[in-house]
Amino acid sequence: MKRRQLLASAAVALPSFAALGLLPGCAATVLRGTGDLGVVIGRANGTLYLVDTTAETVIGEVPGLGDLSHASVVFSRDGLFAYVFGRDGGLTQVNLLERRITRRVMQAGNSIGGAISADGSLVASQNYTPGGVKVFDAHTLELVADVPAEYAPGKLSKVVGLVDLPGRRFAYSLFDADAIWVIDCTNPARVGVQKFEGIGKQPYDALVTPDGRHYIAGLFGEDGLAMIDLWAEKPKAQRILNGYGRGQEALPVYKMPHLRGWAVAGRRAYLPAIGRHEVLVVDTDTWKEVGRIPVAGQPVFVMARPDGRQVWVNFSVPDYHRVQVIDTQTQSIVKTLEPGKAVLHMEFTPRGESVWISSRDDNRVSIIDTQTLAVRKQLQVPSPSGIFFTSRAARLGF
Amino acid sequence: MKRRQLLASAAVALPSFAALGLLPGCAATVLRGTGDLGVVIGRANGTLYLVDTTAETVIGEVPGLGDLSHASVVFSRDGLFAYVFGRDGGLTQVNLLERRITRRVMQAGNSIGGAISADGSLVASQNYTPGGVKVFDAHTLELVADVPAEYAPGKLSKVVGLVDLPGRRFAYSLFDADAIWVIDCTNPARVGVQKFEGIGKQPYDALVTPDGRHYIAGLFGEDGLAMIDLWAEKPKAQRILNGYGRGQEALPVYKMPHLRGWAVAGRRAYLPAIGRHEVLVVDTDTWKEVGRIPVAGQPVFVMARPDGRQVWVNFSVPDYHRVQVIDTQTQSIVKTLEPGKAVLHMEFTPRGESVWISSRDDNRVSIIDTQTLAVRKQLQVPSPSGIFFTSRAARLGF
Repeated sequence: MKRRQLLASAAVALPSFAALGLLPGCAATVLRGTGDLGVVIGRANGTLYLVDTTAETVIGEVPGLGDLSHASVVFSRDGLFAYVFGRDGGLTQVNLLERRITRRVMQAGNSIGGAISADGSLVASQNYTPGGVKVFDAHTLELVADVPAEYAPGKLSKVVGLVDLPGRRFAYSLFDADAIWVIDCTNPARVGVQKFEGIGKQPYDALVTPDGRHYIAGLFGEDGLAMIDLWAEKPKAQRILNGYGRGQEALPVYKMPHLRGWAVAGRRAYLPAIGRHEVLVVDTDTWKEVGRIPVAGQPVFVMARPDGRQVWVNFSVPDYHRVQVIDTQTQSIVKTLEPGKAVLHMEFTPRGESVWISSRDDNRVSIIDTQTLAVRKQLQVPSPSGIFFTSRAARLGF
Repeated sequence: MKRRQLLASAAVALPSFAALGLLPGCAATVLRGTGDLGVVIGRANGTLYLVDTTAETVIGEVPGLGDLSHASVVFSRDGLFAYVFGRDGGLTQVNLLERRITRRVMQAGNSIGGAISADGSLVASQNYTPGGVKVFDAHTLELVADVPAEYAPGKLSKVVGLVDLPGRRFAYSLFDADAIWVIDCTNPARVGVQKFEGIGKQPYDALVTPDGRHYIAGLFGEDGLAMIDLWAEKPKAQRILNGYGRGQEALPVYKMPHLRGWAVAGRRAYLPAIGRHEVLVVDTDTWKEVGRIPVAGQPVFVMARPDGRQVWVNFSVPDYHRVQVIDTQTQSIVKTLEPGKAVLHMEFTPRGESVWISSRDDNRVSIIDTQTLAVRKQLQVPSPSGIFFTSRAARLGF
């Protein structure tokens, strides 16, 4: 075959590749933007399902991610890479366009999530075993800092509630040490650690408000929450909402609510009550409770639509086939949906026109129009749990 | 040359393409995420400069966009396409990865900006000549709806202050008709129009708050602002801030401030005074003025860092070589910067760790660290004006 012929046949081949959205010579890669991509955790089979929120389809799958129960995900600031934190301590970097694992390290024995720095350069994971935080180069996954949560000689605490803060900083809570630490990784070879001690018994999860100002940890060992105003000249831990918790007469709690899901809408925060069938409404100026909204079960995730006009709630067993929608103007339920069995997670599209809801036991992801509350589409995904969209890369504390 | 040799030489060629981040066979295309891309308007030469906010570099240029004075840009929800609205009525779709114009229409005689619907399907432009709004299919740039701003038989108004609202809706102001219209393009063949009349004399620009709730138009013909609470059961226009404007004794105004830049941080909004060397502070619950901050000149853009902890201000002539930084906790200036001559625009990176500032007459874009306020880098760009990053695709009203 002569050169001219070869080139001619190559040229003929181009349109068919183009029709598939594929580039010649790179059958696995696709030329496209990454702003409307996302992932759904396949909890049972260690697989990441890649989704497109414009076409509302599953566009690929990446197996081999290990134990994905309670897995969470952050994204590189360009939206090309997902970083998946597995329960088994695996940290996996997945290229969403090549649809493959590009790097993977077993970084701990037992892990429960992570965060990425605002500049996208550092990925941090929070570990139960051994207790502490490890910080990795986001590009290479090389370990650049190891910060054991050693609160007494030889004693390491489980770490929970890890969030990113502006300026290559992270905040997290030490379950066994009743402490909150803020680390500054501007120079990863010399990590600065600021310790807040005696913040309350057994912080079990935490969140940072969308502006990065208030770090708030839930307490397992007592009622109330610990809060630090990180913008204060001299930040210190203070107690808020002493009525928040399981109370004196311990209620049966089927699942501790996730704090990262807490919704801040306007100047109000919406919190899942613990054990009670209620969502608490809190004024974010005073951090006092200003109302309670009765709901259909023990709330797990309480999430605001990006514009704050609605708050969506899912529940623990036995009510986890339901999702309720709260109108934040009237503080009342406007709709109860039943999208499928075992609703585990919800994720809003970037501007909130839709919400994606996973129903594990029905192997279904439902896409709901948030204006009409009608089902737009249902996708078949095996045992879906967490749903994460790349737009998280542009948001603080997500 | 035989086939084997050809393939071998092709294989040899691959690493060099890969080293450049290019894919073989598509020299102009790049496999990468789009979440950290952006564009800088080259005002003098009709060229769009493509930038990467992670590498902090100019990565390409696309000429041929016509008159780019006062140009503005929105992005497709995947971050692949920029839509550039030129002063001359040109609407240009640019593929940021292929770095080329993919579609271009001359849609009006004189135009001043546009918006994209939350679902990414519709692009709308606001036109002076002929007065009205045209709505295009975002993919093909086919005209799908034409809404002349006909406020009396045969009389068309200039349109200003166009913003996107949830649910394929747009709001805008009619300069010549003292009116605000909200259109619903759910079905582009039958656009619904809601008209608010007598809202105040000569609305000249407008904004929508980040939650999409309050649409606010500045008035050229009198003092005060017109506001509509779009979440109200029966929305109606009301007057706020009667002291806002040029006042009874008309001050010389070198440039009317841009309203879209107004900053909402927490429950306060920061507004550029007209003519006066002041930034006004407004409570967003009551919409009353609660303070004024003296600044170095007549403010043009008043923009909040994404976390709301700082507000950055630039100025009209003769003070347009300066930029000032306001700390929102103390309501005071913490720094005056001089990044170059004729500062025209500022844009924050998605999580706000840096701000990019264009200095037209120094042909320079400065990248400033918002924590340390130090210059991180300077880029040479011919006559830069507006700077727009793809993360705008995930934000309402941007």
